[in-house]
Amino acid sequence: MSDRLSAREVKRHKWWGWGLDDVTFRYDNKPAFPVLARDKVGVDLDSKQPVEPDLSDFEVPAGRLPDAIRSQLVGVVGEENLADDDEYRVVHSFGRSLPDLFRVRAGDFARLVDAVVYPSSEDEVAAVLRIVLEQDLVLIPYGGGSCISGSVTPDVHEQRPVLTMNLGRMRDVLEIDDTAGLARVEAGMYGPDLEEQLNELGWTVGHFPDSFTYSTLGGWAATRSSGMQSDKYGDIEDIARGLRMVHPDGTAVTKAIPGRDSGPSVHEMILGSEGRLGVITEVTVQVHRISPVRQVIAYMYPDWEHGIRGMHAIARSTDVTPTFTRLSDGPETEFSLSMVKEPTSTKSKVAAKVQEGLFSYLRSKGWDTTNEMSISYVCFEGSKESVEQQKSLVKKIVKGNGGITLGAGPGAIYDQKKFDTPYLRDFLLNYQVFGDVCDTGATWSNLNEVHSTVYDAFYAVQREQGLPGFMFCHMSHSYHSGACLYFTFAFPYSSDEQALGQYYAAKNAVQQAFVDLGSTVSHHHAVGIEHQPWITEDVGEVGVRMVKGLLADNDPGRNLNPGKVTTP
Amino acid sequence: MSDRLSAREVKRHKWWGWGLDDVTFRYDNKPAFPVLARDKVGVDLDSKQPVEPDLSDFEVPAGRLPDAIRSQLVGVVGEENLADDDEYRVVHSFGRSLPDLFRVRAGDFARLVDAVVYPSSEDEVAAVLRIVLEQDLVLIPYGGGSCISGSVTPDVHEQRPVLTMNLGRMRDVLEIDDTAGLARVEAGMYGPDLEEQLNELGWTVGHFPDSFTYSTLGGWAATRSSGMQSDKYGDIEDIARGLRMVHPDGTAVTKAIPGRDSGPSVHEMILGSEGRLGVITEVTVQVHRISPVRQVIAYMYPDWEHGIRGMHAIARSTDVTPTFTRLSDGPETEFSLSMVKEPTSTKSKVAAKVQEGLFSYLRSKGWDTTNEMSISYVCFEGSKESVEQQKSLVKKIVKGNGGITLGAGPGAIYDQKKFDTPYLRDFLLNYQVFGDVCDTGATWSNLNEVHSTVYDAFYAVQREQGLPGFMFCHMSHSYHSGACLYFTFAFPYSSDEQALGQYYAAKNAVQQAFVDLGSTVSHHHAVGIEHQPWITEDVGEVGVRMVKGLLADNDPGRNLNPGKVTTP
Repeated sequence: MSDRLSAREVKRHKWWGWGLDDVTFRYDNKPAFPVLARDKVGVDLDSKQPVEPDLSDFEVPAGRLPDAIRSQLVGVVGEENLADDDEYRVVHSFGRSLPDLFRVRAGDFARLVDAVVYPSSEDEVAAVLRIVLEQDLVLIPYGGGSCISGSVTPDVHEQRPVLTMNLGRMRDVLEIDDTAGLARVEAGMYGPDLEEQLNELGWTVGHFPDSFTYSTLGGWAATRSSGMQSDKYGDIEDIARGLRMVHPDGTAVTKAIPGRDSGPSVHEMILGSEGRLGVITEVTVQVHRISPVRQVIAYMYPDWEHGIRGMHAIARSTDVTPTFTRLSDGPETEFSLSMVKEPTSTKSKVAAKVQEGLFSYLRSKGWDTTNEMSISYVCFEGSKESVEQQKSLVKKIVKGNGGITLGAGPGAIYDQKKFDTPYLRDFLLNYQVFGDVCDTGATWSNLNEVHSTVYDAFYAVQREQGLPGFMFCHMSHSYHSGACLYFTFAFPYSSDEQALGQYYAAKNAVQQAFVDLGSTVSHHHAVGIEHQPWITEDVGEVGVRMVKGLLADNDPGRNLNPGKVTTP
Repeated sequence: MSDRLSAREVKRHKWWGWGLDDVTFRYDNKPAFPVLARDKVGVDLDSKQPVEPDLSDFEVPAGRLPDAIRSQLVGVVGEENLADDDEYRVVHSFGRSLPDLFRVRAGDFARLVDAVVYPSSEDEVAAVLRIVLEQDLVLIPYGGGSCISGSVTPDVHEQRPVLTMNLGRMRDVLEIDDTAGLARVEAGMYGPDLEEQLNELGWTVGHFPDSFTYSTLGGWAATRSSGMQSDKYGDIEDIARGLRMVHPDGTAVTKAIPGRDSGPSVHEMILGSEGRLGVITEVTVQVHRISPVRQVIAYMYPDWEHGIRGMHAIARSTDVTPTFTRLSDGPETEFSLSMVKEPTSTKSKVAAKVQEGLFSYLRSKGWDTTNEMSISYVCFEGSKESVEQQKSLVKKIVKGNGGITLGAGPGAIYDQKKFDTPYLRDFLLNYQVFGDVCDTGATWSNLNEVHSTVYDAFYAVQREQGLPGFMFCHMSHSYHSGACLYFTFAFPYSSDEQALGQYYAAKNAVQQAFVDLGSTVSHHHAVGIEHQPWITEDVGEVGVRMVKGLLADNDPGRNLNPGKVTTP
């Protein structure tokens, strides 16, 4: 086991937003971006003054953890691994959902967690859990704090002391079984650390959610995460082969063995349990040898419908097995183009010229290059020969569905910038603009209907609210029978008082459209508290009743992250 | 909805054994088989008189279903769809495990089911379930009755009336979504009917367990079945995308949508629940277009270790995606060769000569062709080009691991005979010989250790028992991190009184070796009652506690197939 970080060395978000303190989105080098912001969202970035919050403007209520219990906890983890100062309590009391960000920036500190403990071993996790049960506390497990469904937020009505358990010190690769391609890893491991440690040994897990830089292996398992390379590597359900979870009655262990047939799946009860059954301490993941060749190729289709036909043809083909496939619709393609930096080098100036020429050619062929054409990215991994062969097959499929191949250049740019998007939300909030995402799983047969219905629902609400708004969407995570649709929307709210009402009007319309069309309430953002209004429509009345029974039976005192997934 | 069969038209096993009355294993055309039976199992088939059972030799105790309840049930399903005559009660009271077969043949009718109902709709299933709960009956759902873990057998101590529900009349394909590749199918559909109905429309499910001819879709889901083509099509967990299950509180419905992230998985609680949460009435399965080309190619390795290296290399390769891969060890290869028919046609005589020549050549190269060399089958599907390419890659892998390619001839023979093996068990029982199977999931890193340890454990027990015995094994169901090992063993028991004791001594030694080495108690034969002694070692104490809680909460009266998976 490596030397442990101390609590203060564990990476954490800035208190009011995503990620590192000194990283923010900038647009001064992206000339098309302020134009889009003005035209689509009605915000003049250059004239409006951005507002960044300051913690010293707010009063942070004192914690409620009795001294005697604090001493007990310190006895387990050590004084330096219990944090109960204001900033740590604030940062651990919110995930990174839009309402979380809005509330934390507004100093809405009605119910903060009372202390944060950082255990360094499964034994310490178990010892803390014993104290939690004996003293009737509430325990909230915490990975990277990136969740957007409210899974780490304490209930505002909770009267008992609330303890958050940050797993960030437990970040070792414990064992690699080279023959089986399995790695036992502690749950507090962040995405980048995991890949770095494994890459050094020639392995990859291949799990890259948008939250990658600020999410952990345990968090992925507890929320049923999905990464952008799931086409090849699978969702976390496929990747996480074995689990260890500290439960009130001991440690649950599921074997990392293929072919589970011993009754209802304990493994699949723990996945997605969001801390309500215990604390996941260890995950055994499938690991794969890093491919000798990896390429992301960009394609362009005249519109969404052509693109979906192409995506589906790729998914159906038994001869191609891409690492990921992604299609942006017209508006998202327009948004992506607005994010292109101003060409300054000779190389980028040439590229801009080439693009201009291409778009002009496409217009001459009848394409609408402003907001119809749809960019697609496909990632290939394997031997040089296999990648070349697959590229050639996909090129044919794209062409057969009316699209063209752009090549590796734009693909590489997409691949580099893919984890930067969360910073944009904070930037927009500085201008009183909401930007958020909703995702769903849908079958190939109703992807297009979900797509158009969600647009209609969103813009109808915005018209009712008398607000501008901008929505865009991409398709990713291809499966045999369907895929994920991932919608982004943005609009300026009218006032602090109306803000969350306006947000939920828009978000709820989208979520309701998902379930009304038989799709899932969310593809990979868990339930938390934000998606609970639709859980019955998602898993059915009997399903909810089964889950409630399971949770109540395992945690009769409601000490384990109560209120998440479903109410008692 | 098609016209429903009546109860009497639903296919059923012969009362004392596997499958159709008039199909039995014969060896008169297989000259090597009696030699093997004599040398390995110590049975002289030609001198010993086979004993077939006769139901009229036994007294069948009367059913205990009160007339008033019988009338209520008849009110739901109709008189012709309730069967309570002796033969129907007997055939539904036993699965097809070795102890089941031994007991049914011995007329061990201590506790038979009291009646069999055949509902024709989900509404009828629900109406029967209401009667079961109101009248405090026991309900056992029944698919094809092929299970070998005791999942359909009533508890001998059960005092309440026991009702078996045969789903065999519910056998329609209700809907096919061509775009999504999904078919909604009633749970009582038998394997061959399912493939026939779908094949006509160009689709396949690709699920072919050994029990295929006598197992149903609902049974597969309820027991977490795995088919021999799981390398490509997945286990039933992967294939069954949506479920409907009649539960005491209503119908549970899981959506056939990729990307489930709504908490602990209700879908995965229902899979493997063996009737303890309700009655599965409908499954939405992934369907695939039938491949233009399908070929099974046979290979030979000098021994098991070389073969496993080859199998693993195929599993690891990202360039080949076979439909199935299978490796028989030396003893199983010897057994397979003993099943070859005496050559009578010119063609088969030539083939025998060619084989003789090949074996003699291999011996000259130092191979042990009697009981070391290991035959392997790999199935390829896809376009002509892709199949040719994959065959060429696999040929290279096999050669690189010391093996040779035999070709398509033996592959085709294997493919035709794959569902006939269950008849052999009944044949052997006619000679007081037990033949049975045990399977486990293991990682690539401990496959060889499991293989050798199980052999040692079995032969040690047989030595202690003073009995001969023969064991063989194959590897199938390849996954990223491991595979299934499937052991077959046979031995003559000493007397009717000692028979089951001798059987369990052998079987228990094998099962215990599985879990002692960290492998699963079973890869795809469910828990039932036979595997319960190892369930704690399989899913852990906390896991068992979670499952018990789930089952007790959903069925507090223990009316739903009580005693299966785990005791209360």
